[in-house]
Amino acid sequence: MDQRYQPSDSGFAARIRASFERQGFMRLLGATLTRVEPGLVEIEVPFSADLTQQHGYFHAGVASSIADSAGGYAGYTLFPADSSVLTVEFKINLIAPAQGARLSAVGQVVKAGRTLTVCSLDVFALAKADNEQNGPLHRTLCASGLQTLICLHGRADG
Amino acid sequence: MDQRYQPSDSGFAARIRASFERQGFMRLLGATLTRVEPGLVEIEVPFSADLTQQHGYFHAGVASSIADSAGGYAGYTLFPADSSVLTVEFKINLIAPAQGARLSAVGQVVKAGRTLTVCSLDVFALAKADNEQNGPLHRTLCASGLQTLICLHGRADG
Amino acid sequence: MDQRYQPSDSGFAARIRASFERQGFMRLLGATLTRVEPGLVEIEVPFSADLTQQHGYFHAGVASSIADSAGGYAGYTLFPADSSVLTVEFKINLIAPAQGARLSAVGQVVKAGRTLTVCSLDVFALAKADNEQNGPLHRTLCASGLQTLICLHGRADG
Amino acid sequence: MDQRYQPSDSGFAARIRASFERQGFMRLLGATLTRVEPGLVEIEVPFSADLTQQHGYFHAGVASSIADSAGGYAGYTLFPADSSVLTVEFKINLIAPAQGARLSAVGQVVKAGRTLTVCSLDVFALAKADNEQNGPLHRTLCASGLQTLICLHGRADG
Repeated sequence: MDQRYQPSDSGFAARIRASFERQGFMRLLGATLTRVEPGLVEIEVPFSADLTQQHGYFHAGVASSIADSAGGYAGYTLFPADSSVLTVEFKINLIAPAQGARLSAVGQVVKAGRTLTVCSLDVFALAKADNEQNGPLHRTLCASGLQTLICLHGRADG
Repeated sequence: MDQRYQPSDSGFAARIRASFERQGFMRLLGATLTRVEPGLVEIEVPFSADLTQQHGYFHAGVASSIADSAGGYAGYTLFPADSSVLTVEFKINLIAPAQGARLSAVGQVVKAGRTLTVCSLDVFALAKADNEQNGPLHRTLCASGLQTLICLHGRADG
Repeated sequence: MDQRYQPSDSGFAARIRASFERQGFMRLLGATLTRVEPGLVEIEVPFSADLTQQHGYFHAGVASSIADSAGGYAGYTLFPADSSVLTVEFKINLIAPAQGARLSAVGQVVKAGRTLTVCSLDVFALAKADNEQNGPLHRTLCASGLQTLICLHGRADG
Repeated sequence: MDQRYQPSDSGFAARIRASFERQGFMRLLGATLTRVEPGLVEIEVPFSADLTQQHGYFHAGVASSIADSAGGYAGYTLFPADSSVLTVEFKINLIAPAQGARLSAVGQVVKAGRTLTVCSLDVFALAKADNEQNGPLHRTLCASGLQTLICLHGRADG
């Protein structure tokens, strides 16, 4: 756990899980929240033919969507209880084919501010090695990004 | 139509429609190709509760996903028949709530190169004005971005 | 002139020229403010061997620096008199060699907001055609970008 | 030293120092190469009133310029001897005032490819603490970015 960050709202994890449940799009993707820590959130999505681009890999939009939500909620872990989070912008580099059994997006706070927060975004493809189909899943970095969030004070999310 | 761009492959529109059909993710979103012109592609998606973020608007990931595909195919209109297109990276600013009956993403080539192509991305929310529920849909710019594509020569998409 | 934008401060041009004068870095570059209009600022810099990268073209950092200032001041034309402007982030694509007698950066407001403003950035190389050394300067788009600004209310720039 | 990266050209450091010497703009800034390692380059610049924005801090363009060169040369450490490097694009978030005695930009390869390479960019302000003017310099992260480079094979830099 990142010792730099002390959430001001001790109920941050429940607040984020409730907000995530309201994202119809995360449900459509089959995404789940797999880690919620101060300044860090991970979201995973299993492979499905519904999530592909033209070559059969995960669509860049899927990687971007779970990365955007992971970063947004990573920032939101540090926001006050009566606030909302919006993405101002993000940039993402797609650095390897998003191919495998699952995608995992990790958002991490780089700089927390009262109004603006900056997060790093990393997306990993989890796949078995070609020669060991009964072996463990290997993580390959397939996308890396940077995101700016804004905190709307006094406007609770629910 | 943009007179600057002359596709080298006169069958570009059919090639793009076939590739779009292979994107399982566009089908999941309910997206359709609404314009395919030299250097310009538009993709639209109707509103659905399955596409929302926590406040009930279109998720930024939906806007980003159709913007990414629109830009990718805008570049691909100008690529040779026996090539593929991959997104290198994109950046997107979310400048207004993506709220309305439909989202429309327009990708346009800014600079076409042999290896790399740069596109602008604009996403519009199409909504009725609050006071005229029987009136026409108004377009509001809700996201604006910039994208880098790479052309893989000699590797047909199909 | 862009009719969409009405500056709240009629003294915006003088305010921007005074702020520009305080940027020691623009003076070092030899940069000048060539247009100051509501929502649009242009900055030009003449070629010098002091501004080059390793191949003798303008360094990407020069293009980025004048683009950043042009966008920042484009936003600042629309800000109140007693405010300051800071760049939150920008992204820039270098799409052609920045080669020629001058570089011109144009920043334009895409979306003006109370807290955040988004600008497009375009940088042009002004050069004579190879075969007409006495002819006029031609403009070639050599960089294109997108920038996010923040308005600090109640904190005058001077 | 990052064990992941093995330069194909054992003379990479001399090649990079020679290229850096040809960047007139780095000389104008007073910048020096302070680290050259496989996949990592650091560039520093001392404070000067010539490098300021309107509030007296380092101009965002200075931070961006040394970050762009640091990232470009970080990628170039891994390129073949007979190649050149060009920046395709970069994005940078300015997350704290760039204030202090020196700026240090660190570029690091995130993903090395035959054609495209992606680097992370971090810029630190080195300043004394307010209450200990004889104390050591503290490093504060003031900018963070992501950059895409292209390798031009068969075109030596010199």
